[in-house]
Amino acid sequence: MAVYTEISESQINGFLEQYDIGELHALKGIAEGVENSNYLLTTDAGPYILTLYEKRVNEADLPFFLGLMEHLADNGVNCPQPVAMTNGEYLSRLADRPAAIISYLDGFSVRRPKPSHCKQVGAALARMHMASTRFPLSRKNALTVDDWRPLFEMSGSRTDEVSPGLAKMISTELDFLEKQWPHTLPRGVIHADLFPDNVFFLKGELSGIIDFYFGCNDLLAYDLAICINAWCFEPDHSFNVTKAKALVKGYRQVRDLSAEELESLPVLCRGSALRFLLTRLYDWLNVPPGALVVPKDPSEYIAKLKFHQSVGSPEEYGIHD
Amino acid sequence: MAVYTEISESQINGFLEQYDIGELHALKGIAEGVENSNYLLTTDAGPYILTLYEKRVNEADLPFFLGLMEHLADNGVNCPQPVAMTNGEYLSRLADRPAAIISYLDGFSVRRPKPSHCKQVGAALARMHMASTRFPLSRKNALTVDDWRPLFEMSGSRTDEVSPGLAKMISTELDFLEKQWPHTLPRGVIHADLFPDNVFFLKGELSGIIDFYFGCNDLLAYDLAICINAWCFEPDHSFNVTKAKALVKGYRQVRDLSAEELESLPVLCRGSALRFLLTRLYDWLNVPPGALVVPKDPSEYIAKLKFHQSVGSPEEYGIHD
Repeated sequence: MAVYTEISESQINGFLEQYDIGELHALKGIAEGVENSNYLLTTDAGPYILTLYEKRVNEADLPFFLGLMEHLADNGVNCPQPVAMTNGEYLSRLADRPAAIISYLDGFSVRRPKPSHCKQVGAALARMHMASTRFPLSRKNALTVDDWRPLFEMSGSRTDEVSPGLAKMISTELDFLEKQWPHTLPRGVIHADLFPDNVFFLKGELSGIIDFYFGCNDLLAYDLAICINAWCFEPDHSFNVTKAKALVKGYRQVRDLSAEELESLPVLCRGSALRFLLTRLYDWLNVPPGALVVPKDPSEYIAKLKFHQSVGSPEEYGIHD
Repeated sequence: MAVYTEISESQINGFLEQYDIGELHALKGIAEGVENSNYLLTTDAGPYILTLYEKRVNEADLPFFLGLMEHLADNGVNCPQPVAMTNGEYLSRLADRPAAIISYLDGFSVRRPKPSHCKQVGAALARMHMASTRFPLSRKNALTVDDWRPLFEMSGSRTDEVSPGLAKMISTELDFLEKQWPHTLPRGVIHADLFPDNVFFLKGELSGIIDFYFGCNDLLAYDLAICINAWCFEPDHSFNVTKAKALVKGYRQVRDLSAEELESLPVLCRGSALRFLLTRLYDWLNVPPGALVVPKDPSEYIAKLKFHQSVGSPEEYGIHD
């Protein structure tokens, strides 16, 4: 759930004058996205999403994010598309914040994904990876292997408040990952946050993927590892091999994985688990006063990391060459 | 902003089978209403509001609220209308809560009402009062003059944390209001919470009123006094006579006020200011841990109450017989 910036009628009407989508019918704050304020905007031309970019998003990154959505939509990926103003630009300002209107996507995120959902997510992720090879902009991943130790140090001695022994476990894992990280695998634009919240389905079929605000350039197989963590564990943290097989099968039907990528999956899954563990740990220990967002429990990712530490080869995920 | 109960795809699909509005397109939590969880539900048949009634709403009151909306909509008041299930009922259950689907209303609430808005609000309030005279159900106001002292006692000795001397001021005001309350004025169904958040406008015209979950039977002119407090003060708490004149004029064009009602307006405004002061005071002193709602500052209603205490006659509101 997001912060909601209050928008006055005159502000939104003035803002809409820059567009060719008719007059305002309704504007409702919606509980979607955590970093930004999102509104369902309805005009003469239909429903849209209005996004106000709050402080946590770096304004210099917005052309990458909006350009990526446009590029992907143009290349057959079902995702929201920024709406151009009459001057051809996508980015404007509203209530003192950068703001954009994005097309509205029907669909519903599943809370309990089935293997059939996982397979479609794998295929959509691969389509995104293929479609973005020709995307001209790039953005460094601010949360990749080299960033994890400084992030860990921000939690520092308070880490063991979450779970005794956690600091030692993370420190040992960082030593391992910094040595073993497979820097030479194929790279490209990754989503980096393709959790079930960010994938819509309609009558069982994937209708689109949203929230490209962690998108960046990194190892493509790392994006798949993020999805394995996000989609293939049960609520009790047990690993569902059937879902993992379906996810990877869906992916490989669109983009095959090299032997090196397959071999690296356990390390990439460990890295992905650590990355989400570290941000959740930091957010858990640093809830700002008056926060409207309940922080996510880091323990889920401790369990996932421990699972991947026990995995010796991709076959143990049910994945074969 | 409301609590959001998480709803699974199978839950919502099962729920929709009770209705004749087609299949699910999308479901998004929206930031509307404080007591309940509200979602924008889109199906083959278009957009709707799905409301899940959370703990603060008494389930026994729901037939009154839903019946009132249906009755008002049938009698020419622009307001959301509950959608009947194929069995003819309005109230079902979803995610272990009472739930109803309500028709979707276009429009946008104004943050800075102008006199033209106030006039339309007055007329809409009077139309609601007239239309509900034939509504067969009734509901006691749980927040009327007799309830204020027990409510005040729940804040008790902590009251002066908000403002030194406040407890004494409230206690003196209660003594006054309990003696002077005009119990014999015309009664009927009142909205009791017609704040700017609960009125939609479209291109300057009032498009509807929402949120009937404080609706009850009480003095009709008390409802107008609530609106005077909610619509006719500026952000610096100064009283805007032009807006008050417009509000009352709009009201009287639809339902005239008796000499007794007019004469009682200063007392009713004091009572209304105290009622909102008391609930805000309590909420301010009792923020539950993990709350997603930022409590409203009670000081605004201290200022409004003080203003009305200084008013000797309705003429001082700019209102003439």
